[in-house]
Amino acid sequence: MEFTAQQIADVLNGTVDGNPNVTVNNFSKIEEGQPGTLTFLANPKYESYIYQTAASIVLVNSDFSPTSPVGATLIRVPNAYKALAFLLEIVDKSRKNKEGIGSMSDIHPSARIGEKCYIGNFSCIGENVTIGSNTKIYPHCYIGDGVNIGDNCILYPHVAIYNDCRIGDNCIFHAGAIIGSDGFGFATEGDTYHKIPQLGNVVIEDDVEIGANTTIDRAVMNSTIIHKGVKIDNLVQIAHNVEIGPNTAMAAQVGISGSVKIGRNCRFGGQSGLAGHLRIGDNTSISAQAGVISDIGEKQTVMGAPAVPSKSFMRSYVIYNRLPEMYRAIEKMKSEIEQLKKQL
Amino acid sequence: MEFTAQQIADVLNGTVDGNPNVTVNNFSKIEEGQPGTLTFLANPKYESYIYQTAASIVLVNSDFSPTSPVGATLIRVPNAYKALAFLLEIVDKSRKNKEGIGSMSDIHPSARIGEKCYIGNFSCIGENVTIGSNTKIYPHCYIGDGVNIGDNCILYPHVAIYNDCRIGDNCIFHAGAIIGSDGFGFATEGDTYHKIPQLGNVVIEDDVEIGANTTIDRAVMNSTIIHKGVKIDNLVQIAHNVEIGPNTAMAAQVGISGSVKIGRNCRFGGQSGLAGHLRIGDNTSISAQAGVISDIGEKQTVMGAPAVPSKSFMRSYVIYNRLPEMYRAIEKMKSEIEQLKKQL
Amino acid sequence: MEFTAQQIADVLNGTVDGNPNVTVNNFSKIEEGQPGTLTFLANPKYESYIYQTAASIVLVNSDFSPTSPVGATLIRVPNAYKALAFLLEIVDKSRKNKEGIGSMSDIHPSARIGEKCYIGNFSCIGENVTIGSNTKIYPHCYIGDGVNIGDNCILYPHVAIYNDCRIGDNCIFHAGAIIGSDGFGFATEGDTYHKIPQLGNVVIEDDVEIGANTTIDRAVMNSTIIHKGVKIDNLVQIAHNVEIGPNTAMAAQVGISGSVKIGRNCRFGGQSGLAGHLRIGDNTSISAQAGVISDIGEKQTVMGAPAVPSKSFMRSYVIYNRLPEMYRAIEKMKSEIEQLKKQL
Repeated sequence: MEFTAQQIADVLNGTVDGNPNVTVNNFSKIEEGQPGTLTFLANPKYESYIYQTAASIVLVNSDFSPTSPVGATLIRVPNAYKALAFLLEIVDKSRKNKEGIGSMSDIHPSARIGEKCYIGNFSCIGENVTIGSNTKIYPHCYIGDGVNIGDNCILYPHVAIYNDCRIGDNCIFHAGAIIGSDGFGFATEGDTYHKIPQLGNVVIEDDVEIGANTTIDRAVMNSTIIHKGVKIDNLVQIAHNVEIGPNTAMAAQVGISGSVKIGRNCRFGGQSGLAGHLRIGDNTSISAQAGVISDIGEKQTVMGAPAVPSKSFMRSYVIYNRLPEMYRAIEKMKSEIEQLKKQL
Repeated sequence: MEFTAQQIADVLNGTVDGNPNVTVNNFSKIEEGQPGTLTFLANPKYESYIYQTAASIVLVNSDFSPTSPVGATLIRVPNAYKALAFLLEIVDKSRKNKEGIGSMSDIHPSARIGEKCYIGNFSCIGENVTIGSNTKIYPHCYIGDGVNIGDNCILYPHVAIYNDCRIGDNCIFHAGAIIGSDGFGFATEGDTYHKIPQLGNVVIEDDVEIGANTTIDRAVMNSTIIHKGVKIDNLVQIAHNVEIGPNTAMAAQVGISGSVKIGRNCRFGGQSGLAGHLRIGDNTSISAQAGVISDIGEKQTVMGAPAVPSKSFMRSYVIYNRLPEMYRAIEKMKSEIEQLKKQL
Repeated sequence: MEFTAQQIADVLNGTVDGNPNVTVNNFSKIEEGQPGTLTFLANPKYESYIYQTAASIVLVNSDFSPTSPVGATLIRVPNAYKALAFLLEIVDKSRKNKEGIGSMSDIHPSARIGEKCYIGNFSCIGENVTIGSNTKIYPHCYIGDGVNIGDNCILYPHVAIYNDCRIGDNCIFHAGAIIGSDGFGFATEGDTYHKIPQLGNVVIEDDVEIGANTTIDRAVMNSTIIHKGVKIDNLVQIAHNVEIGPNTAMAAQVGISGSVKIGRNCRFGGQSGLAGHLRIGDNTSISAQAGVISDIGEKQTVMGAPAVPSKSFMRSYVIYNRLPEMYRAIEKMKSEIEQLKKQL
């Protein structure tokens, strides 16, 4: 869809500075602007790009006064970044307006589906499933028996939710996310392993986003719990009986071992890992690739493997790079001491 | 389904101590017990919880004598843990009793399917596939041409097994597991890569469990081999031509490079990685996040990246944290030696 | 399919040395040769195996003269390795000759599909999708609205390509690969996160191979770009707005954070990770498990976490293992210096 600068200014209650009839059909970054796209200038640091950008329209703050000629049409608004975010969300919603039940989907007669839902073709909705209103389930999703899903959720293609898991409102699951697979639990019997049935479930509260191909295992008993507002990136592993506090965020490829309990508002860098049964306090940051093997309190920042407070890590790390120099110093002092001994 | 304490006691040949008509429909841990659930007390360490738990029924050993009043109904059995495991397995089986061929599945006429199988809707079974008895294939699985699968297997949704792979009896594949994708093999041609066809397969023996979204690549020629009793967690990568010995277990996000040969009864911690072509002896443990770059013998325990015997690792690691102190000691000694030299 | 030694020799313009009627139906490595298979001897290092192999046929260079009796039938060709590669490719193609549109697929009427394509059952092809000639899309793939795919591509089962992504010619996507999922982008609002719509796409140029269960996120705006000839292994994470230069190769479980720009002909070892917004020059190698936190120039080799030039890494690492010895030396020197002081 194409829009003119005037149409966009009208939506934003902004004013046009330049050709009101120029049209755009996409967004761009100001430094990579293409004709036919709309970009924005919010951070003065990027001002130089506005004089070069090939973008057709630039959203600017009302008080922006160019110091050189600008080729693009400007739309002046009180807050260019907020105006952009507003436009992005309108476009985002318009692209995700799918509705209706696919004729090639497989929905158990006992399932209850809310209003204005989308169930794509080749999706399976099991026995006694309930799905709230306005939830969108893309093709090839599998919703196991007894699962509850709230309102306004999006499940992209190939999401699998095993039986009896519970999902809140406003959650997003990216393609290939697996919720409720068996925890990795075995009893040893001599040299072999005997599987311990995993009969709990996964509970995901409201406003959670789960990345593509991320896996969250069901609890042995009770629940693996992902609290409200948690954001998890792609290819993350959450083991059985883990509990993650509200608004904690995890970057890609993080691994959390069984029965770990994590506080609220924590941040995990990519590829970091936690050993089993740990407790992590609120507002704590775990650096990328850190390997955590002991409990961590509140408001800590840890790095390294095994992970230590980031100050200790940096202190040791700086010196780590001087090891060859230290080694030589030691060798030199050894001989100096020998010489001193002889001289005495 | 709900059961009374009396019904459960009858199944377990136990005796009821309390209300025989109280009902439960789920399990719980004793420290997180909820009304309507059954829990157990096997380890005396947890005894204090039995006086507080809200669970409706607690399985206890016959000789348990409470030291305070207990609200829950007790069922006395000779071994509370074994009785629980027995109940868990009954419930687990009852939840996985699906049977029959989905009317919306796609099964090649040449495929041979054993008795009492379940083939879910939207699953594809290719040409000349054979599937044993009592095997359950959930929706959205892809079984490529010429694949053989044994008896009593479970393939959860979205499992893909490429052509010509062979799977034994009693195997479990969690959702999104990929078996038999091409190994990562390329010949360089100047600056570009030329793909080497990967014409081998994957052979998985009996009693193997493969985690969600784990990937196991087919061999260039011959087979990538996963021997009997191996247990692999989620998001693990097994490259082409790897061989994993019986009863070896791997935690999540482990990565095994091409042509590695691993012995029996080994254990791999999460996120550990092995370089290509290595040999790992029997009964060896690789710690979480270890990076193994050389062969390891039998019964070793290694840590770190590059991985070294855990004793060496711990010895160096303890001192690593004293590096700033060592650095200062060296600087101090340098000046002391200078002074001594002057004094002489 | 079975072939005689004579039939194979005719295809390769080779000559048979032994029984021309012996038949084979598969390939093997010379050290693991089985009856009924064809193997090859190219590297003189492996010559001893030719006297023991159970393979029925061995391709050898024309000038090979055995020093002991050989049981297998030989086929003499000018270059045994090239002849093998030629046979492998013939067999590989014959196994991937699927064609036609599955009657249980879901193709939007506006989609344009080229000639000689294969669209497997239960695949979804969205609105305004275009697919070139001779492209093979296996069952359970999801191709979102507005996606363009070129000629001669292969998409194995369970590949998901979100809306508006663009794929070149001759690309291979292994099972479970996810292209165009949302980047992990949130604005903090007090303690909570507000999702930033991800409205860009992913552009993949010609001759790219993407491994099983690998995830590539779409850009916020503009494109995440994978240039011509890039090869990516399984379970790799590519974040939003990343750009990967031509012919760069990445082993399994690599993680690339947002907005990283990587040059051409780089190589990434398994499980390595890059922090956001970095620039990596051409022809640079990142070792397995390395953690890169700063820009790297051209033709570098880096190791470790944080990653440093491999020479520095090895220098410090060698000494790291001598830390206990250094610590003892320091303690010893301290007391020696004290004694010297006293003696003066």
